[in-house]
Amino acid sequence: MRRTHWVMSAMVATLLATLSGVAEEGLWLFNRPPRELLQKRYGFSIEQAWLQRLQQASVRFNTGGSGSFVSPTGLVLTNHHVGSDQLQKLSTPERDLLSQGYYARNREQELRCPDLELNVLMRIEDVTERVQQAVRPGMKPEEANAARRKAILQIEQEAHQRTGLRCDVVTLYQGAEYHLYYYKRYTDVRLVFAPEKDIAFFGGDPDNFEYPRYCLDICLFRVYENGQPAKPPHFLRIEPRGCREGDLVFVSGHPGRTDRLNTVSHLEFLRDLQFPLALQVIFRREVILKAYSDRSLENLRRAEDELFVYQNSRKARLGILAGLQDPQILKEKLAQEEAVLTQLRQRGLTQQAEAYQQVRRQISQVMQKSRELYRDYYLFERGVAFNSELFHIARTLVRLAEESEKPNAERLREYGEAGLPSLLQQLFSPAPIYDDLETLKLSDSLSMLVEWLGAEHEMVRLALQGQSPRRRAEELVRHTRCKDVAFRKQLQAGGRKAIEQSDDPMIRLARAVDPYARQIRKQWEEQVEEPLRQAYAVISQARFAAYGSSVYPDATFTLRLSIGTVKGYTEAGQAIPWCTTLGGAFMHEETHQARPPFHLPRRWHERKDRLQQDTPFNFVCTNDIIGGNSGSPVVNRQGDLVGVIFDGNLHSLIWDIAYTDDQARAIAVHSSAIVEALDKVYDARGLLGELLQR
Amino acid sequence: MRRTHWVMSAMVATLLATLSGVAEEGLWLFNRPPRELLQKRYGFSIEQAWLQRLQQASVRFNTGGSGSFVSPTGLVLTNHHVGSDQLQKLSTPERDLLSQGYYARNREQELRCPDLELNVLMRIEDVTERVQQAVRPGMKPEEANAARRKAILQIEQEAHQRTGLRCDVVTLYQGAEYHLYYYKRYTDVRLVFAPEKDIAFFGGDPDNFEYPRYCLDICLFRVYENGQPAKPPHFLRIEPRGCREGDLVFVSGHPGRTDRLNTVSHLEFLRDLQFPLALQVIFRREVILKAYSDRSLENLRRAEDELFVYQNSRKARLGILAGLQDPQILKEKLAQEEAVLTQLRQRGLTQQAEAYQQVRRQISQVMQKSRELYRDYYLFERGVAFNSELFHIARTLVRLAEESEKPNAERLREYGEAGLPSLLQQLFSPAPIYDDLETLKLSDSLSMLVEWLGAEHEMVRLALQGQSPRRRAEELVRHTRCKDVAFRKQLQAGGRKAIEQSDDPMIRLARAVDPYARQIRKQWEEQVEEPLRQAYAVISQARFAAYGSSVYPDATFTLRLSIGTVKGYTEAGQAIPWCTTLGGAFMHEETHQARPPFHLPRRWHERKDRLQQDTPFNFVCTNDIIGGNSGSPVVNRQGDLVGVIFDGNLHSLIWDIAYTDDQARAIAVHSSAIVEALDKVYDARGLLGELLQR
Repeated sequence: MRRTHWVMSAMVATLLATLSGVAEEGLWLFNRPPRELLQKRYGFSIEQAWLQRLQQASVRFNTGGSGSFVSPTGLVLTNHHVGSDQLQKLSTPERDLLSQGYYARNREQELRCPDLELNVLMRIEDVTERVQQAVRPGMKPEEANAARRKAILQIEQEAHQRTGLRCDVVTLYQGAEYHLYYYKRYTDVRLVFAPEKDIAFFGGDPDNFEYPRYCLDICLFRVYENGQPAKPPHFLRIEPRGCREGDLVFVSGHPGRTDRLNTVSHLEFLRDLQFPLALQVIFRREVILKAYSDRSLENLRRAEDELFVYQNSRKARLGILAGLQDPQILKEKLAQEEAVLTQLRQRGLTQQAEAYQQVRRQISQVMQKSRELYRDYYLFERGVAFNSELFHIARTLVRLAEESEKPNAERLREYGEAGLPSLLQQLFSPAPIYDDLETLKLSDSLSMLVEWLGAEHEMVRLALQGQSPRRRAEELVRHTRCKDVAFRKQLQAGGRKAIEQSDDPMIRLARAVDPYARQIRKQWEEQVEEPLRQAYAVISQARFAAYGSSVYPDATFTLRLSIGTVKGYTEAGQAIPWCTTLGGAFMHEETHQARPPFHLPRRWHERKDRLQQDTPFNFVCTNDIIGGNSGSPVVNRQGDLVGVIFDGNLHSLIWDIAYTDDQARAIAVHSSAIVEALDKVYDARGLLGELLQR
Repeated sequence: MRRTHWVMSAMVATLLATLSGVAEEGLWLFNRPPRELLQKRYGFSIEQAWLQRLQQASVRFNTGGSGSFVSPTGLVLTNHHVGSDQLQKLSTPERDLLSQGYYARNREQELRCPDLELNVLMRIEDVTERVQQAVRPGMKPEEANAARRKAILQIEQEAHQRTGLRCDVVTLYQGAEYHLYYYKRYTDVRLVFAPEKDIAFFGGDPDNFEYPRYCLDICLFRVYENGQPAKPPHFLRIEPRGCREGDLVFVSGHPGRTDRLNTVSHLEFLRDLQFPLALQVIFRREVILKAYSDRSLENLRRAEDELFVYQNSRKARLGILAGLQDPQILKEKLAQEEAVLTQLRQRGLTQQAEAYQQVRRQISQVMQKSRELYRDYYLFERGVAFNSELFHIARTLVRLAEESEKPNAERLREYGEAGLPSLLQQLFSPAPIYDDLETLKLSDSLSMLVEWLGAEHEMVRLALQGQSPRRRAEELVRHTRCKDVAFRKQLQAGGRKAIEQSDDPMIRLARAVDPYARQIRKQWEEQVEEPLRQAYAVISQARFAAYGSSVYPDATFTLRLSIGTVKGYTEAGQAIPWCTTLGGAFMHEETHQARPPFHLPRRWHERKDRLQQDTPFNFVCTNDIIGGNSGSPVVNRQGDLVGVIFDGNLHSLIWDIAYTDDQARAIAVHSSAIVEALDKVYDARGLLGELLQR
């Protein structure tokens, strides 16, 4: 499970909370925790210190994942599959960290990551009023959109200048609220420990989103400041005994995106267009990368992490789409929409009921618009037509040159001053880029562009310049200098003029297609996003009015708290236990005749006898999570770490649109297994000492 | 390489022959061999006896492949990957013939195939006049189509009744000519020998369509008649010394389909719609089957052969599509079209030139129509919306009941009396059907149906009956009795009434969607196929007029002769040798660290030292082939077998639309390697004795 590049930026979200009546549902805001619910149901009262410790010990991985500080000297614990893209980038043909694992026995051996940024949420501030006041009644959508963006960029820049922190305005409840998040950024992050992929991802794609599982899906980094191990604001103690069935547990992490209270017309858009297009892309890229990977071990090393992203995304999306294609589920969703209306009417809120009805119709109309625009938006602005690191570097350079000349408040959102440090870190990443893989990916996506738009489409001609997709990709990759970080820096320093004069073919391509990409983005923002924000704000208000305010917003890849119980379930009449054991991993291997990916690392076989076989390995709990929560700490009432989330089972895939807890579960690595493995398998006593010091 | 279910039935084809000027191009008809060319270029005169022996020793595998008789007692040699679907069907969880291989040391051990039909072409008769006379000038397309079908069905039935042979009217040159093919049918076919898949398909999907190669891609069957080994009309002697570089060689086999002289507007239809849709289907099915196969060895055993079909098809189609998306190639094609016109005008054939121009425009208009119809035709008539053996059994039962009541000449083509024996053999096949795999495939294709047509489409509602694709597929597969051969026989015997009264859910589904499938087929035949036949007949005549009559028709999965030279080539400045060796296989394994699929069977390692290491293993030649030629014999001037075609290299994929011979090559197993391996690796002395007896 992992948040992927496919997750759309916080476009849509609503709230289901009180509708479902399921107590353990909820992706709660840290500035609005469910105190009452916790008190009533579990007799647990949240203390501010407890909450603050959890918040400031939680870490966001900007590549798409979560983690937590677990020592006073900057150790960060996350999933192996969250760290894997750095493992891949740190690898060479001679040293494959993904397959071999890594353990830095001292500080000198810690490996600096090429482009990892970690964020810690220091503070939240409600700026709803200021953002909403910028949009005056009667404004056209394009005016409203511009005014809102301007307000947001100003708020971010002021806050950034004042504090030096990374400052993001987060749109919540689809535009009903806007909160300003202050993050401490860490960019000097070093690899400390990773197990072999064969145990981190034991069972591979076949076992992904399955349970029972046997994965040591962990990875440890250390953050540095000024060349010294950082002292984090807070950290979590690891509880070596972990949790037991029935325990109340909390998950603190960064769920990427949910669509739980999209209106039905909006869900139909996802079902009919967005998901099918995404799956088309995923299927073909999975096949292309798999075929490439199978050709040699070196190819596998280069593409494995990316291949996993597609495999993971494919399973997740097929699961959600199965839900969207189930008429029963959409019927239930429609009933929920109607129920709000009934509530409003019963409470005599006639005017609000009418407004609610009106915006439902509006959303339906906006969805017509989004059906028209989405494919081109997806191809050009989201860039699936140009599946190439080098293209995306070129495009960033082109846009940076243009945006930098504008006043901050008029820029594209991601080029605002407050976000530039993060953007530049990515742009100047020294991570390796492989010509053969780039050519393959770019060639295939250009070919898909021809398939989708037809060979005669103006944008296709512009992109291909009279060549076949294969030949065009070969020439672009062979001749561009964007591989070279120094070249990027030089172009960036040269500003707009350098870009305009550049004859680098990738820069020229990016320049040529950018006007259309910008145009379609503008249409998308003005004709889809802004009207949706306004409509969903009304819908959210209606829900508040109908069900009170103890509700949570859909996921937005920002920090959330979820509550749950460690608990097994029943499947096809069979009891599925709350946890697996270390010994079970060896049995699982035997069942599959040790055929990869059901093959344990040699080290595990050598150390098998030393291991306490009945140590809990993975466990399930009812906590509400979604992609992006990977690596999230699971903590007990004391706020101590008892596990690390790394997956959900197949039943949980539907959580994208609705939470249920009869069979759906989050899956975590048990802290006992972490301690046992570091001790007995990896002889990582130094690391373990640091983790367990009190 | 293999002809797959995707190959469209002989819808379109034209001729390129004399245009390209490449001497070794040509899929020649056995009743019209290129005598002059052979005499002039190679000093080789074809004797009738030589030709007849080759023709009647050649065998068609109706599952999609070629082969040849290689002993007087009915032994048939083909590719492992042509025999693999029978190997899969003959396997059980306890005995996996695909992975373990098989050798019947005596007649009793030979395993009878569940549903294999082999055809041997006994005679060809030109029936063009009779077919063309049925269509009178001024007939509307629907009348012309009906009249033509009627004539064809009558010809087939008369010939069948007269001879007892299988009789197929083959449309050649797109309708410029019609030939009646008389086939001897063999339905009692037994497995004699198959090597392990690891050597038959050494290098697997990564090496497919690549060269150099090291594959023992062979399989031996024996045909029986009346319980005794059949005495074939002719057979080929195996030449143990094989061929050498520079040798003239012939390939006799059944190329499935080429599109070499489609007009450009027709190729654009393939590029824009047909290939992209096929690839969408292939990508998703490959992913779905791969994910299923990876879950356990038993799953792999069930799905492996089918997975290969998609992997193979994906590579082939991507290769062809790359050609279609190359503007240079289409430009050349257009120039060739124009050249015909110039020729006609230069010869003063003004009227014919005008007619040629007119039908080019007509084809362009028909292509508009086919763009409208194709998606639904593909989904419903070709059945990609219902990817299920059980559904196709049900549909055959439903159609059989309906068609059987009609006079022969009014039936759907494949339900004509002459074809019924073959149809019934398939229908009553006892090959195993796996519920889990059926459910997965059907569920996914129903899901794709929703994606393509939208959930509200009438046909989608009809197919899903208010359920989700997954639930619907589960119930259909669980409750249908079509798995049971006795049930099929009973329903077939009961005729139309039994079908109408059946409450079997799969029969009901097939019944429900059939009216629409028939309607769209009717439109397709009348509005696309028939107008194309008429138009391409004119085009063919124009080409005959422009370039003379020494031309060959596009491939139609009927017997063809191709001529070529054993010859290496140059790639990226490097000389690629004409053959590989047995010793090279072990080096290839080492290069890939023996990682599957680059893993040789244990037996090969054990016997390595006995093998003559420099024995030629695989070789390349310039013979013109295409999918369907897999398993074709390669013979020398004496008509003795020197190899078995099993693949083409990547450069040859473009042969679908144009033949070139600078780098494109056919790939074959060398007969020396077959002899050496049977002797030294498999101790198959009895079999070898039979093969080498003179």
